Amino acid sequence: MDVKNFKNADRIAFGRGSFKGLSSIITQKRLLNNNFFLFIVDQYFADKDLFYRIPAEKGDVVKLINVDPHEPTTAQVDNIRDEILGSIGLPSGIVGIGGGSIMDITKAASLMFTNPGSSTRYQGLNLIKHPGIYHVGVPTISGTGAEVSMTAVLTGPEKKLGLKCDSTVFNQVILDPELTASVPPDKWFYTGMDTYIHCIESENGYLNNAYSHAYAEQALQLCRDVFLNQHAGKTPGNDDKLMVASMMGGLSLTYSEVGICHALSYGLSKILHEKHCYANCLVFQHLEDYYPEGVREMKQMLARHQINLPQGLSKQWTEDTITAMAKVAYALSHMWNHAVGPDWKKKITIEKIKELYKRL
Amino acid sequence: MDVKNFKNADRIAFGRGSFKGLSSIITQKRLLNNNFFLFIVDQYFADKDLFYRIPAEKGDVVKLINVDPHEPTTAQVDNIRDEILGSIGLPSGIVGIGGGSIMDITKAASLMFTNPGSSTRYQGLNLIKHPGIYHVGVPTISGTGAEVSMTAVLTGPEKKLGLKCDSTVFNQVILDPELTASVPPDKWFYTGMDTYIHCIESENGYLNNAYSHAYAEQALQLCRDVFLNQHAGKTPGNDDKLMVASMMGGLSLTYSEVGICHALSYGLSKILHEKHCYANCLVFQHLEDYYPEGVREMKQMLARHQINLPQGLSKQWTEDTITAMAKVAYALSHMWNHAVGPDWKKKITIEKIKELYKRL
Repeated sequence: MDVKNFKNADRIAFGRGSFKGLSSIITQKRLLNNNFFLFIVDQYFADKDLFYRIPAEKGDVVKLINVDPHEPTTAQVDNIRDEILGSIGLPSGIVGIGGGSIMDITKAASLMFTNPGSSTRYQGLNLIKHPGIYHVGVPTISGTGAEVSMTAVLTGPEKKLGLKCDSTVFNQVILDPELTASVPPDKWFYTGMDTYIHCIESENGYLNNAYSHAYAEQALQLCRDVFLNQHAGKTPGNDDKLMVASMMGGLSLTYSEVGICHALSYGLSKILHEKHCYANCLVFQHLEDYYPEGVREMKQMLARHQINLPQGLSKQWTEDTITAMAKVAYALSHMWNHAVGPDWKKKITIEKIKELYKRL
Repeated sequence: MDVKNFKNADRIAFGRGSFKGLSSIITQKRLLNNNFFLFIVDQYFADKDLFYRIPAEKGDVVKLINVDPHEPTTAQVDNIRDEILGSIGLPSGIVGIGGGSIMDITKAASLMFTNPGSSTRYQGLNLIKHPGIYHVGVPTISGTGAEVSMTAVLTGPEKKLGLKCDSTVFNQVILDPELTASVPPDKWFYTGMDTYIHCIESENGYLNNAYSHAYAEQALQLCRDVFLNQHAGKTPGNDDKLMVASMMGGLSLTYSEVGICHALSYGLSKILHEKHCYANCLVFQHLEDYYPEGVREMKQMLARHQINLPQGLSKQWTEDTITAMAKVAYALSHMWNHAVGPDWKKKITIEKIKELYKRL
């Protein structure tokens, strides 16, 4: 047995209004390096109140990023690093304010500021040589678990794969459910479903254990409260719950693993540039033979919130596209190993995965 | 609103057999300070297999401690520090293997190795001046949550109060449920009830929030599986669950607070030297007007496991003893503030607390 021994976020702040603590939290770190902070912020907030509440001081850099066109890329992170290092030098720290993409960009950039060359060199486990700079995650939408996970998932020219090591994990996380108040309904649902799917996949596989199970069980219960039960819907109380669920789902999969949905979803993102949480939903609805109860319940949630996922997508895909996606998915052996078992290669082939994609 | 921002254990290993990872986990730390490790071990294991599995190397010190006579004291921790510093110097790190008392001694000793004077000087919040040495917690009984909490509770000549700061928290926790296999039935129950009471107290008070609630709800569910439901009892599967519940209960109270039972229990321990978990059980059974559902369920658990708690204890106590205990309990204002509210002094008096003690 390999020992499951993982790094926690150093500190987690929780509570409505806790964002106002950010200023004092980072104050003591401002003496590090070149005495300025870099804020990486979802462009969505450019005209929102939150933008004016960012505790940026003279000399700090606030960088707005549009996360809608594509998943975070290695080039995107390298460019941020090169631009800042080349002009002002090494930041005291970096704060990410946004969703999973912003969390991943922030985590990856914190590492790339101290590790030379392209981030493509570090996609994988423990390839990072030097600890990153101080980094803070402030999620503004709940579901991806990126606020607590050990990986910063980037799409590079060759692969979609995380920079995964101890130093990837945030030094500080601020969980302020108030920041998720303005999330649009469709993104609220798709991103929340990422947590739901994390838990179903974490639970249903060979690496599940009492630790990952307890986190998944509670996160699933919270997801049901938010998306299915009597008081379901986007309310302040449910925003609180979904923020906790996201963290717990992330901790569950850290001590277990994701599965078939995430493998296929990565293919959709890598080849067709679908956003991660939406891609998960597109795939998961068709995996009833692998996750029967989870798919049944997710369909109840879809119906409850009148979300209509597109069908028949694969009819527009060429055989080459489907093969390319299947190759991406097949390469994620750790996911298949968990979901199907150590002998997964006897059961899962490129052809089998192509069949799964053709269900979409 | 104060921001609830707490330090996590740096790393948490979980799994049956994970204790065998301890050797490699501490290897890289052996180069620190005077190149030896100090192991603080519950004397209970002196003739057990686990004792021979401790990865002590030449130059390391293994210190057996009998935790039965009393709760950990400031003098006990000071003596360990003085003895080791005076003979071999500053350890590379310290590993605690045992229950809540061993966890507290280990956490406190790690701090006292680098902070001069008696530990009585540091009982309170953020009084520690220098970070402690690298410290590892290996719990061998589940329930206290001391493996993840920010405090090292010590009884001193004047007060029972924790050394509470970021640096108190373990750098590494190893949760190996196999180590709890030989726990005697009575200690299994009383210590497990500490988690149950943590959760009931965390939930029922002014500081409860979605974060502490989610952890408490799941830990309570796990406690019901272990102590009440169809498959209740001391089984390997339930040992796994109780170890996770203990951690989750500890995380719940960190982001909320304990309450009336713990306040009174501290008085019992300080004045009459009752052990913490047992003292909690003695008190909690009589708090049905504060925690009606929790007390009712705890009594079901007592009946299920044929545990008979003594009654009529207070008949043997002098008025002075009861007054002394009530003064200890009254001083724990943070607990009353949570349980009763900011105006608790209007409702809770020394006389009222004495009445509660007289129920025992």
